[in-house]
Amino acid sequence: MTAFQEAVDSLTPLDAAAGAEAVALHDRLAKPRGALGGLETVGIQLAGIAGACPPPVPEPVVVAVFAGDHGVLVEGVTPWPQEVTAQMVAAFCAGGAAVNVLARHAGAEVVVVDVGVACDLPPAPGLLQRKVRHGTANLLWGRAMSVDEARQALDAGADVARDAVAGGARCLVTGDMGIGNTTASAALIAALTGRPPADMTGRGTGIDDATLVRKMLIVEAAAGRVRDMDPLRVLAEIGGLEIAALAGFIVAGAAARVPVVVDGVIALAGLLVAAALAPTCVDYCIAGHRSTEPGATAALEHLGLEPLLDLGMRLGEGTGAVLAVPVVQAAAKILREMATLDGAGVTSKE
Amino acid sequence: MTAFQEAVDSLTPLDAAAGAEAVALHDRLAKPRGALGGLETVGIQLAGIAGACPPPVPEPVVVAVFAGDHGVLVEGVTPWPQEVTAQMVAAFCAGGAAVNVLARHAGAEVVVVDVGVACDLPPAPGLLQRKVRHGTANLLWGRAMSVDEARQALDAGADVARDAVAGGARCLVTGDMGIGNTTASAALIAALTGRPPADMTGRGTGIDDATLVRKMLIVEAAAGRVRDMDPLRVLAEIGGLEIAALAGFIVAGAAARVPVVVDGVIALAGLLVAAALAPTCVDYCIAGHRSTEPGATAALEHLGLEPLLDLGMRLGEGTGAVLAVPVVQAAAKILREMATLDGAGVTSKE
Repeated sequence: MTAFQEAVDSLTPLDAAAGAEAVALHDRLAKPRGALGGLETVGIQLAGIAGACPPPVPEPVVVAVFAGDHGVLVEGVTPWPQEVTAQMVAAFCAGGAAVNVLARHAGAEVVVVDVGVACDLPPAPGLLQRKVRHGTANLLWGRAMSVDEARQALDAGADVARDAVAGGARCLVTGDMGIGNTTASAALIAALTGRPPADMTGRGTGIDDATLVRKMLIVEAAAGRVRDMDPLRVLAEIGGLEIAALAGFIVAGAAARVPVVVDGVIALAGLLVAAALAPTCVDYCIAGHRSTEPGATAALEHLGLEPLLDLGMRLGEGTGAVLAVPVVQAAAKILREMATLDGAGVTSKE
Repeated sequence: MTAFQEAVDSLTPLDAAAGAEAVALHDRLAKPRGALGGLETVGIQLAGIAGACPPPVPEPVVVAVFAGDHGVLVEGVTPWPQEVTAQMVAAFCAGGAAVNVLARHAGAEVVVVDVGVACDLPPAPGLLQRKVRHGTANLLWGRAMSVDEARQALDAGADVARDAVAGGARCLVTGDMGIGNTTASAALIAALTGRPPADMTGRGTGIDDATLVRKMLIVEAAAGRVRDMDPLRVLAEIGGLEIAALAGFIVAGAAARVPVVVDGVIALAGLLVAAALAPTCVDYCIAGHRSTEPGATAALEHLGLEPLLDLGMRLGEGTGAVLAVPVVQAAAKILREMATLDGAGVTSKE
């Protein structure tokens, strides 16, 4: 059996008893009921994920940055050239990209996974070679990859999650790099949520009005073509390889019962695919940050997720998610370290 | 000259040149322009505060929790009894309150300052005795404290900030404790922003409808009484002692050119007082978290501040602000540690 299918088969619901214990413990802590708001929600989820109350602090943390290229780039959907994907992979391996800075700040390790960069990459520290193909085909005129290639990318992502947890990780963070990938994400989000494709299309790294209109038409064509296809086929038709790998990574992280902190619009496209293939995985996910891309908010609403941060970021790489990691860890520490009203000798309200 | 007046007199504007350097540096970093959103805004502010680009990472961090009681409690504005203020001070000193947990998580030190707890407190680790009086008088029927007492509380807060920075702190965080202080804060916010008092009044730690109506009437009466008074007099009429101390703390932190991360509705009431007495101090403040109290959002709008977090918290103590400290520090690290597009060998967009 493949790594992805194994993960799907071993997914289990959250531990409701541990979650209920966390609800009750929050109400005994030295504070008014509910006064820690969303931090309490995360704490309850962490207890359900770990099957323990208080839950362990989610650490060590691994950020996996999946990289892939997109054939749709020839349609002129972004001003950035394709070689930037490989250049940014090199920057991740050198430790100088935004995600590296924020990961070091959060005490997280970064692994970079080539699942579909268009060129061959030299070996580099922290780089995993799991290339499925050299970039996707152009999603405008036909399928981006075969269903078998989509399966291989799902497996690559699942392997990375499984290996990270086997190596000690207790919190996974999604990252992505791929010039052109907001186009594929918008089409996937439109296809999997049923929302209007044009409304899911944003300016990505920053495009002008003419490019935005062209991008909308491409997203509309792709989303229209995959209507009524099953989710795996939708994934193959639209891509990308890094989005497929993200879906596998999320499902395998959930199967290993660790929280998966999900980044912006690319990761959410991957999560929609994962949710379509294995719905339970969503319960293990925490949305780190609300990307400014319109598809991100649509996906969050569809999935019923509320992001921890909303700072107007739109970089990807896992930056929004890893920036939220300290908040996630704080939620566990509240349950582990806070005194109760009784224990602190605080009079309860009359 | 008193510590507060000294701070007011030594306040200087942000360093515009360092801020402009940070804007330019962000645009050279290995990312699309503006892609880090609010994180870039904070980085620019930190450069302006420190007068250096890249700015130093704001650490060590000191959270000062100012505690005081409120005479208005006899009007039944909250179900929590007054002794809880002193009990929570003991919990802060024992390290078991929410702010202690979150401060340890952020690597921050907590100091607790009694500026107006109703009873005498035994010495405790981390407790500074700066009591101005044993709680305020009932703000409904007359002034909460004398103008001289308000000045003493402003000085106490300014001293704490000055001493913290002299001890090495490079980031200050506001904290507060005082049963009944959302009533005083709502009245101060209404008085200092001109907004309708009833709209500024929230449920605080959680009150029923009848209590909320009573609280609204009290806030309305107090805000009405102070109309056209100067800000120092408004502060004395409404209180509280901890709010006055917070105002002094903020101004002295700004005068020492360190960022001051401001918590929820109580801290924002203090910041409105500080801004009325010394407007430049606002430029040194970063709003940590949007409290669910309605007055918090009104104060943020009035001050032109956008909070970093919005997690539905309403605990005070400094919890929302200290939870945001890792985000503030991340903003500095982006400017200090990220590679430039040139340096990383990344092709700029066409």
